[in-house]
Amino acid sequence: STSPIKDTDQVRTLLQLCVERYYISAGQANAELFQRGMSCSYGPLGMELRRNVLEQWWHSVTRSRAQVFGVNTLSSCKDRETDAQRQLKIVECEQIKQILEQKEVSNEQLIQKVKLFLQMSPFLRTDLLQGAMEQFVPSLELINRKLPFGLAETGLCFQPSDGSGCPAEVTQTSLVWFCSPRTSSQWLDHWTRQRLKWWRKFALSPSDFSSSDVSEEELIETASRGVKIIYNFPWGQETLEMLWSRGDTELLQMHKGARSKLQCRDGRRSVPHVVSITGNMDRGLMAFLSNSLQQLKREDGKQRLKQRKVLKLHPVLTPVKVALDIGRGATMELRQVCEGLLQELMEEKISVWPGYLETVSTSMEQLQSKYDEMGVLFTVVISENTLESGLLQVRSRDTTIKETMHISEIKNFLSRYIAAAANI
Amino acid sequence: STSPIKDTDQVRTLLQLCVERYYISAGQANAELFQRGMSCSYGPLGMELRRNVLEQWWHSVTRSRAQVFGVNTLSSCKDRETDAQRQLKIVECEQIKQILEQKEVSNEQLIQKVKLFLQMSPFLRTDLLQGAMEQFVPSLELINRKLPFGLAETGLCFQPSDGSGCPAEVTQTSLVWFCSPRTSSQWLDHWTRQRLKWWRKFALSPSDFSSSDVSEEELIETASRGVKIIYNFPWGQETLEMLWSRGDTELLQMHKGARSKLQCRDGRRSVPHVVSITGNMDRGLMAFLSNSLQQLKREDGKQRLKQRKVLKLHPVLTPVKVALDIGRGATMELRQVCEGLLQELMEEKISVWPGYLETVSTSMEQLQSKYDEMGVLFTVVISENTLESGLLQVRSRDTTIKETMHISEIKNFLSRYIAAAANI
Repeated sequence: STSPIKDTDQVRTLLQLCVERYYISAGQANAELFQRGMSCSYGPLGMELRRNVLEQWWHSVTRSRAQVFGVNTLSSCKDRETDAQRQLKIVECEQIKQILEQKEVSNEQLIQKVKLFLQMSPFLRTDLLQGAMEQFVPSLELINRKLPFGLAETGLCFQPSDGSGCPAEVTQTSLVWFCSPRTSSQWLDHWTRQRLKWWRKFALSPSDFSSSDVSEEELIETASRGVKIIYNFPWGQETLEMLWSRGDTELLQMHKGARSKLQCRDGRRSVPHVVSITGNMDRGLMAFLSNSLQQLKREDGKQRLKQRKVLKLHPVLTPVKVALDIGRGATMELRQVCEGLLQELMEEKISVWPGYLETVSTSMEQLQSKYDEMGVLFTVVISENTLESGLLQVRSRDTTIKETMHISEIKNFLSRYIAAAANI
Repeated sequence: STSPIKDTDQVRTLLQLCVERYYISAGQANAELFQRGMSCSYGPLGMELRRNVLEQWWHSVTRSRAQVFGVNTLSSCKDRETDAQRQLKIVECEQIKQILEQKEVSNEQLIQKVKLFLQMSPFLRTDLLQGAMEQFVPSLELINRKLPFGLAETGLCFQPSDGSGCPAEVTQTSLVWFCSPRTSSQWLDHWTRQRLKWWRKFALSPSDFSSSDVSEEELIETASRGVKIIYNFPWGQETLEMLWSRGDTELLQMHKGARSKLQCRDGRRSVPHVVSITGNMDRGLMAFLSNSLQQLKREDGKQRLKQRKVLKLHPVLTPVKVALDIGRGATMELRQVCEGLLQELMEEKISVWPGYLETVSTSMEQLQSKYDEMGVLFTVVISENTLESGLLQVRSRDTTIKETMHISEIKNFLSRYIAAAANI
């Protein structure tokens, strides 16, 4: 229903908002990285959003079942064998310079030396799968060789450039699920449902998130089935998460076919099959931001048509839950009240925006549209009235309704609101 | 008071315990990385401990003051100028191979081409300071050019090898604090006190953590003062965290002396001074583990002298808060009770060890010493009695006292215990 022109506008609006409202750092190159689903330089709000998304992923994957354990593997490694076409290596300049500066070496010898040096250099991981596969055997003791179980990890991975010479970073989430061969297809379906439910839980328009089976042609060699979790961006569909049912090929390869070492108990004794679930959380951030941006037309007081932009991020994900501002009254005293309230909320781990520190005078309307674009859930205004009666004004991002509340109630109100939103 | 031999024993005991109790992966190389204060391959418990430590650091640094903002910068970068002697570069093997395979190129041309290629390749960061310095100007709008304020980040950094050819990874924490030139020395003292307090808060023997001023000879070029936070390991002192009062040199260098762009309001207009606080949280983990391992001698039932090892990690940091086990009774029914309790505790974000899944029969004594070595805070035993009267047994790691409690009380008991420990 939307024309391509409007979509380009939409993308531009979103990226501009992300820069202006402290989600990502300024600069064309940085915005491009972000749009392409790569890790970029995040501002304070983007950083907090990423923290929240990763926290929710971790919680949903590790705390939902007893059989998921977290691991943490190295991002660079010397020993791993890999058949990736383009490998990223870490090279110490000083050492390669020493090779290049050697005198009386033939062309051929030089080439050989550089090649050998590269071969010996550690490489950077491109995904978290290898690490989990390596952790499989040591994990068997944990679970008494009983299937199914999973290993979860989040971390930075590096992707080779497509000829541009500039490799990219991606924040990956990975659950590697080991299960009995008979059940691997069912588990693939189970995790697809779980993951799609997770994405949709935090969405404003859940239908923009969908899953689709990988076609025969797209199947990777070791996999029997694959499912993509897709987001419908204004510029087209992109994959947020990949689920593969990979069989036991890679486990056997890595452990050199030592079947007995790999065997688990699942009624019979068998080498488990692997279901891998790999997400790109940088693109996930972009999807949640894109999904939550609403542009609403409305008339202002002078009957001019204005556009109101609101970032309706899910209460659990939104980086700033409440902004504290001061209205009319003695500035110094009001600031002190704000300072106290800020401390109280922070101790409750509710993230607060200290709007009261701002000394440039802005109209309440301008301030409100700034907070709406930041995705701030509630705005609290402390004024003369608060000093007299303890009453303050709370304005909701989502309803735009302003309520009056006693200052002693605000902490509980916010805690309850966020907790309720988390449990839906 | 302790002899060197005993200290070596102590280190060996600790490392062995870390491997056996799922803190780090097995292998000599991995244990060495860990002992040297580098990132290593962590098992589920080490991973969770690291998460908890980083969470506490983040909370203490960003939530304690309104003026600290989180950022997230890239770990590889093309543009940054750096004068580090040994630079780590990311190289795409495919591309360097193309250079090496070019025909009819003289030795000199080849060397030039490889050098140019290296120069163009992105490098891996060795610390988080550069990133924060770059974020300084965009952050000024956030704080209305008002000093002081800080930028916080945690992330992976890479360290050149000392000739071994194997660069290491370190989990760094970084707070870069921008303040008025007049106050930078006071701020250095302030942050030293804060940071030392933080380390000691989670320690069993706080006096093993100390701070010491950097001597004249050790001062880095740009710094006027420096302080180390030190841990007294069995093998000697190591630095956990470095605080530098760095002046404005690096800010001016990075922004090519554009003073007006850098000036902030602090009464007068001035280019801020920088206080950097950089921690190595992998070594921090090692310090907390080392600090919390107690070896107690006691007699067993048969009057044999036994050694009891307990990992008395702080309740907030310890990876597993409670282990659920079953005693006498109908196994299937007891497991169901455990399953329900596990879900309840996990929803409360209390990490649980599903000991009831273990099918190998172990004596309660063996089980207890395993949990003590894992640092599990409480062991809950569900038995016949629980099915009849709802009563279960709770055993505390720190007091070894067993209490009887109703199953409906356990969640609140644990929540309250952990919350109380966090607030000391």
